[in-house]
Amino acid sequence: MSSPKQELQKLGKKIADDINKGKNPSIDIPVRALSNIVYDQKKCTISMGNAKATRYFFNVAHSKKFMQTAEVAAISKDLVDLGKHASLRDVFYMAKRTIPNTKVNLVDEQSETDKAIEDLELVTECAREQLNINANKMGSVAGRVIVEDHGDKIDWSKLGSGGWSIPSNVEDVKFLKSDAKYIIYMEKAAVWERLHEDKYWEKQHCIIMCSQGQATRGIRRLLQRMQDELKLPVYVLTDFDPWGIYIYSVLKYGSISLAHITEKLSVGGCKFLGITADDIIKYDLKKHFIKFEENDAKRLAQITKYDWFKDNKAWQRQFKMMKEFKAKAEIQAMSARGISFISEKYLPDKIKNQDWIE
Amino acid sequence: MSSPKQELQKLGKKIADDINKGKNPSIDIPVRALSNIVYDQKKCTISMGNAKATRYFFNVAHSKKFMQTAEVAAISKDLVDLGKHASLRDVFYMAKRTIPNTKVNLVDEQSETDKAIEDLELVTECAREQLNINANKMGSVAGRVIVEDHGDKIDWSKLGSGGWSIPSNVEDVKFLKSDAKYIIYMEKAAVWERLHEDKYWEKQHCIIMCSQGQATRGIRRLLQRMQDELKLPVYVLTDFDPWGIYIYSVLKYGSISLAHITEKLSVGGCKFLGITADDIIKYDLKKHFIKFEENDAKRLAQITKYDWFKDNKAWQRQFKMMKEFKAKAEIQAMSARGISFISEKYLPDKIKNQDWIE
Repeated sequence: MSSPKQELQKLGKKIADDINKGKNPSIDIPVRALSNIVYDQKKCTISMGNAKATRYFFNVAHSKKFMQTAEVAAISKDLVDLGKHASLRDVFYMAKRTIPNTKVNLVDEQSETDKAIEDLELVTECAREQLNINANKMGSVAGRVIVEDHGDKIDWSKLGSGGWSIPSNVEDVKFLKSDAKYIIYMEKAAVWERLHEDKYWEKQHCIIMCSQGQATRGIRRLLQRMQDELKLPVYVLTDFDPWGIYIYSVLKYGSISLAHITEKLSVGGCKFLGITADDIIKYDLKKHFIKFEENDAKRLAQITKYDWFKDNKAWQRQFKMMKEFKAKAEIQAMSARGISFISEKYLPDKIKNQDWIE
Repeated sequence: MSSPKQELQKLGKKIADDINKGKNPSIDIPVRALSNIVYDQKKCTISMGNAKATRYFFNVAHSKKFMQTAEVAAISKDLVDLGKHASLRDVFYMAKRTIPNTKVNLVDEQSETDKAIEDLELVTECAREQLNINANKMGSVAGRVIVEDHGDKIDWSKLGSGGWSIPSNVEDVKFLKSDAKYIIYMEKAAVWERLHEDKYWEKQHCIIMCSQGQATRGIRRLLQRMQDELKLPVYVLTDFDPWGIYIYSVLKYGSISLAHITEKLSVGGCKFLGITADDIIKYDLKKHFIKFEENDAKRLAQITKYDWFKDNKAWQRQFKMMKEFKAKAEIQAMSARGISFISEKYLPDKIKNQDWIE
């Protein structure tokens, strides 16, 4: 595949050619609508269908969006040439200005440049990180890995109690060395600090990674790259509630809003380690249940019907039990059994017994 | 001052003595109410007054809270003995159980253990981090500093694009070496990544630190310790809006909800670097204004009246201009002038010209 820079040049040349030939300048853009989103049963991911739409410069309905896409492509090209990265918000401010001799702004809201960037991802087939546009940064990692990033060698096992702060863009991270056997991704920073203090990754020869809530794009890409390049299994640890299961769902299958970029972000092989309905019974956690609110029940009903869950017996069983419980439970409920129960008993047992859900 | 362990033992011994003497067991707790919060004009911080209340075990109105405070003290003592740290949520689950021979739970909601922990901070005069109870972890740091933390030497200048992930508890961090001249704390991770990519800290001999939004307790304490131990000035960079100014206010003066612990968290010497109303005029950022919503105007009116702002002419001038603008502006608006304008022009000029507000 050609580089992001080549893809951007190809787009620019195509538009210039249209102009030189006296044609109406146009860009072909895959349709980003629910109607064009498919669940690929073979690959087990959400992705885009083949429907495309042509956007023309000389078309009252298309003109502004055409210019926005071209502007964002120009900004991205500048960033790539400079070797610098911008946030979505930066790109908005860089694009925002009044079109000369008019009273019309090229963009008024960030949602417009955001959409233009998504279009550009589709047209160039590059993730926006490759186009030097970054998402927000969040999360920490520790474990038996040495990486190289921007000229620095970083040993994830020698970073004190803090760990490495995961950058928004992990495209340039090189894995130099690792003797880890697996990765645990957890949704809570407090649980990460628990496992880190207990040196779980050292004792269990693994890697621990967290964000807070939904995984950022940087984390998803880093997990995917470690799964593929280091050949490591990825286990997901979340609360027992529809929101925790959705975090797993997005990691594994992708999300509808980012369907166009699923291939570059999804962690196809990841497994759900817990908390499961069975854990709750086995470890007597029912007394720490938190009652379902209306939106919990509603979300559960939605997730139960997802294409990738609806024929999965193991998951349907979990959903059924959650519905019967009418309750959720947090990872930290495990602390009721002792502060280090999770790192000394729960997780080692789960991994040893291959007690996960796929 | 005695250690947290000694303080906990003192509390336990006091209760045991009451019991042995046949007295009604009691704990003296400073009153945590707005009536007992004072703004200390000398120290320039919000802190607690001297009002105390006695909580008795044999008193129907006090009994449960007494037990909760004693329980949390016991949990903290166990944690200190074990050398382990728990989150607020962990402590809730560790305390949660039915009182034997009753149908009453010792705690039902986390807010109850949270309050008991705040009481314990007051009684022992230890921050909860010293009692081995941690807040949430967030934020990144990079710069010309080498620290030691839990046996690891960590060079903040050699951590690639990610930086060091700031732990929730920084009590054990030792500063081994630093030739930094100042610290910039910013409210946005995206701005931090901009400065980091531009090697701002390397060129300007400084330290850059961020969280996302309000600074966590770990960050406040780390800034305070660097200010005091490394004798470094701390500059704060936020959006030009009442919320950004409140972030500065909390860092410098403390917050009402944590007034009892201000001394251990506030960064008394910190200065507000920007964005100021004057920056907006100087750098022609008015076109990137975001209109005030009703809650912005309301918040501005509140902040204007704060004890520590109401006689401060420089701040009142800013508030007046913000009110006239009826608008706010983001740090990233600077990107409209070039992706690295902030690191190459704006910040170096501000620092050089001592163009800040105190």
